[in-house]
Amino acid sequence: MRASWQERFAETSDVLKSSQHQQTVVRVLDLEIGGSQFITMAGPCSVETEQQILSIAHHVRAQGAQVLRGGAFKPRSSPYAFQGLGLEGLKLLAKARSETGLAIVTEVMSEDDVSLVAEYADILQIGSRSMENFTLIDAAARSGRPLLLKRGMMATVDDLLRSAQIALTAGNANVILCERGIRTFDSTLRNTFDPAAIALLKHISHLPVIADPSHACGHRELVPALARIGVAAGADGMIVEVHPQPEQAWSDGEQSLTFAEFDEMMTMLKPYIRHRAAAVGNLLETVG
Amino acid sequence: MRASWQERFAETSDVLKSSQHQQTVVRVLDLEIGGSQFITMAGPCSVETEQQILSIAHHVRAQGAQVLRGGAFKPRSSPYAFQGLGLEGLKLLAKARSETGLAIVTEVMSEDDVSLVAEYADILQIGSRSMENFTLIDAAARSGRPLLLKRGMMATVDDLLRSAQIALTAGNANVILCERGIRTFDSTLRNTFDPAAIALLKHISHLPVIADPSHACGHRELVPALARIGVAAGADGMIVEVHPQPEQAWSDGEQSLTFAEFDEMMTMLKPYIRHRAAAVGNLLETVG
Amino acid sequence: MRASWQERFAETSDVLKSSQHQQTVVRVLDLEIGGSQFITMAGPCSVETEQQILSIAHHVRAQGAQVLRGGAFKPRSSPYAFQGLGLEGLKLLAKARSETGLAIVTEVMSEDDVSLVAEYADILQIGSRSMENFTLIDAAARSGRPLLLKRGMMATVDDLLRSAQIALTAGNANVILCERGIRTFDSTLRNTFDPAAIALLKHISHLPVIADPSHACGHRELVPALARIGVAAGADGMIVEVHPQPEQAWSDGEQSLTFAEFDEMMTMLKPYIRHRAAAVGNLLETVG
Amino acid sequence: MRASWQERFAETSDVLKSSQHQQTVVRVLDLEIGGSQFITMAGPCSVETEQQILSIAHHVRAQGAQVLRGGAFKPRSSPYAFQGLGLEGLKLLAKARSETGLAIVTEVMSEDDVSLVAEYADILQIGSRSMENFTLIDAAARSGRPLLLKRGMMATVDDLLRSAQIALTAGNANVILCERGIRTFDSTLRNTFDPAAIALLKHISHLPVIADPSHACGHRELVPALARIGVAAGADGMIVEVHPQPEQAWSDGEQSLTFAEFDEMMTMLKPYIRHRAAAVGNLLETVG
Repeated sequence: MRASWQERFAETSDVLKSSQHQQTVVRVLDLEIGGSQFITMAGPCSVETEQQILSIAHHVRAQGAQVLRGGAFKPRSSPYAFQGLGLEGLKLLAKARSETGLAIVTEVMSEDDVSLVAEYADILQIGSRSMENFTLIDAAARSGRPLLLKRGMMATVDDLLRSAQIALTAGNANVILCERGIRTFDSTLRNTFDPAAIALLKHISHLPVIADPSHACGHRELVPALARIGVAAGADGMIVEVHPQPEQAWSDGEQSLTFAEFDEMMTMLKPYIRHRAAAVGNLLETVG
Repeated sequence: MRASWQERFAETSDVLKSSQHQQTVVRVLDLEIGGSQFITMAGPCSVETEQQILSIAHHVRAQGAQVLRGGAFKPRSSPYAFQGLGLEGLKLLAKARSETGLAIVTEVMSEDDVSLVAEYADILQIGSRSMENFTLIDAAARSGRPLLLKRGMMATVDDLLRSAQIALTAGNANVILCERGIRTFDSTLRNTFDPAAIALLKHISHLPVIADPSHACGHRELVPALARIGVAAGADGMIVEVHPQPEQAWSDGEQSLTFAEFDEMMTMLKPYIRHRAAAVGNLLETVG
Repeated sequence: MRASWQERFAETSDVLKSSQHQQTVVRVLDLEIGGSQFITMAGPCSVETEQQILSIAHHVRAQGAQVLRGGAFKPRSSPYAFQGLGLEGLKLLAKARSETGLAIVTEVMSEDDVSLVAEYADILQIGSRSMENFTLIDAAARSGRPLLLKRGMMATVDDLLRSAQIALTAGNANVILCERGIRTFDSTLRNTFDPAAIALLKHISHLPVIADPSHACGHRELVPALARIGVAAGADGMIVEVHPQPEQAWSDGEQSLTFAEFDEMMTMLKPYIRHRAAAVGNLLETVG
Repeated sequence: MRASWQERFAETSDVLKSSQHQQTVVRVLDLEIGGSQFITMAGPCSVETEQQILSIAHHVRAQGAQVLRGGAFKPRSSPYAFQGLGLEGLKLLAKARSETGLAIVTEVMSEDDVSLVAEYADILQIGSRSMENFTLIDAAARSGRPLLLKRGMMATVDDLLRSAQIALTAGNANVILCERGIRTFDSTLRNTFDPAAIALLKHISHLPVIADPSHACGHRELVPALARIGVAAGADGMIVEVHPQPEQAWSDGEQSLTFAEFDEMMTMLKPYIRHRAAAVGNLLETVG
């Protein structure tokens, strides 16, 4: 007999479903993440200019997005890569919120920046490179803001749940998990998207789970297919990169959708999103 | 500038889309695999008894499956595991075909068995452990039967296309590719399902592509979600394990669906299958 | 308490050390593989011409090699790659043996070729792409020749032992295991060399184990360091690619050593080989 | 033609060998790390008690170790795991230094702890979970203390060099690289030790490189073999876990050596260490 999921993940039991608690709903402004609505977070990799972020915010809002993403503090994959606008970027995100009503999600890279980022952002993103930075997760959790916890590129499902549990232990139950692709032997695409992990997380955990199709593949032309896969996997939402001129983006241009591509994707996804609630219900409800 | 897909896969150009050839349709009995219809292949891991295979065949046929799967020659994951009924299994599959009209797909393990298996089966399966057995692929291709080529658990997309090209070079263009999960650092599930590879293969290759949600996860309760993901990825069909009493199956019981679970899955998938053709069309059509 | 190695590998107990059987010694001509002598197998990737194979054989013999390697039947990593000289290659290897006294190891790719290859070769190599071709292993084992079983590039230690057990079950206990690098997320080198697997195999199994530093890294300039690592890991020997003009080799030129590099490596390894017996003895002798 | 190493790693050219700079020697107390002497760092996973750390320090000193390791701030692999003695642990390490003359290496987990840890430690360890915490590396580098930078379990050689370059860019050239095993599909041992990365790093970079055989395998009985492999790979030193009563250690007991095992290993390694300098010299000196 195979061990049950509850036995296998016993060490992180706080994030598992129980008879009393089947689903956490994270409330941000007037949004409910983890509820019946599929949530679209969209925006550029990096906040670049006021004109850039405002035009993106208005555009994605008109197409149905509810949350604006955009990096102000950027992880540097190399010492010389662009590191973000910092405070100026946060202020531009806040301006975009006040103009559009979109909630703001942005990454916090350092525990010393937590209070500053928490002042401007509605959701604090813990990036994949920080998923095992427990000090940062603890500090971010204590800010009281909801967390968007991205899976590390070599983190098991178990590792991700352990990091989530750090936040719960610090008193913050508003944790949104995010699958964004893992590192495997096959480097044909940027990462290997793992939507079975989304399906499994929805099966065993009460936390909301979203998909990041942009980082998962790294190729603009495949992002819509991966978004559709994410919906089909049962995700509660997605986070996707959009840029008016991807070829001129300061970072991640090859995986950013143009406005036209974003619009086409949002239209294509509609019937899948309609079937989502039913689909999630079709997963066996009892924890294996 | 990133190299185009056609440049990256130039060595296997025969299996790539071209302006002249966008899609191969494999014809088996009255079926068109790679056409507008989503093809369901279902059946047990192993053919066990006449009563078992006939009852499964009738059941999956009634639920809309078009192809019966079942192992007569089994790969041995251990020297002492069940190795299949052999010729007796092939005869039982043929009997199931004559009773139900289902086409038959079954694995051929050895070049010496090719002519025997080709006598009984409509589609020859090259198993994931044999994906780099080029001698076997060449021999199976020369039989003239369509091939179902399963991706090796350690094979890149490039490796899979190279193996397909072996068959085309041997004069057999009727090759169906199958994604069935790869080996990664995360062993939470049996394998890591890679539907982005399905989306990519549909984007660059003219060959039909199907998903194997059973081997991809190894857990019965997640198979329907993975099947749904496969449809959303743009697959032309799926191959799924079904058994009347999985807990008594001679092999792979933990990933086999019961009849009731199979029925529920087929009902759940219907709206997704309806949207499939449109969805595939939404992939950017030009080869990047 | 962690399970013991014997418990973890219980299914392949025939290949594990026991109080009665600590070490298998494979006898080939006058060689003892798995005994006190470190065995060097050297030669080209492919047998190309009589002049090529004879010059290499004489050279490596003079430097202390005991076995000549060379492919007559080549695995095709692509449908158009060189496939080997076949029977002509086997005859050239036999001629090299009669001129130098070196034993011959060469790969058998297909069960239909087993009797032919076994007629000429002293050791039948099962290549890494064939490690899970159980039909081939069974057929090769029944030839009575010793087998050199290369680890698949995504095979666990457990998988390798299962394949070895296939041979033992077929009545052939003369199996030499070979670690040649595995596939991981890091593609800086051709493969990731795993000498801890060598140390573990020497700790738990009675079969001889050798290292393949050439395939493990794919870069000529690192081959000597990897050979040294293999000796330090406790390997009973190594198999290494040598070519008089690597830049003109028909295959694998980038990882083949020149004669001068081979000579320098053999001199450099001498003190390490002297310490090997002692080193192996320093591994705790009892099976964990 | 394959690109040269210098072309492949051009973005981190500061850490590569050049005609002017072949080897960095890090000076700590009277030690030279990266010079002709092989450096042994030994100690417990965690500092537990004064009695524990002092007895270990005296013991490893007597056997030839030059640096004492011991965690005061511990990464938590789970929210409930032991988190270290903190400042009290640092004071105990300092006491062990004053009694034995051993230099101290200990991990810093948070940028807020850098100045405190730098006050007590001679070398600041950046743990594998922090290898992509660029904020922490930058802060630690600015303390002026030498850094021991452990490779992340999901980091390529390129990623490791990028993190090292962060420290150099911050003005600190005293960076010691450490290979400690990576995550792969094979979980037979705790990690997959990658000594070819050590050989490659010694071939292309001027920074000292050490091996961590304890974390690389996770099994006490294999640690000596992996230490020997590290020496053979050309490492400038090693860091190894030792505990008087491993079965009672507060963390990592299964991979900690007893005093007797440590002594036996140090004796066994002596001839290999003697050959190290020559061996390193046998690597082709020119940067490929």
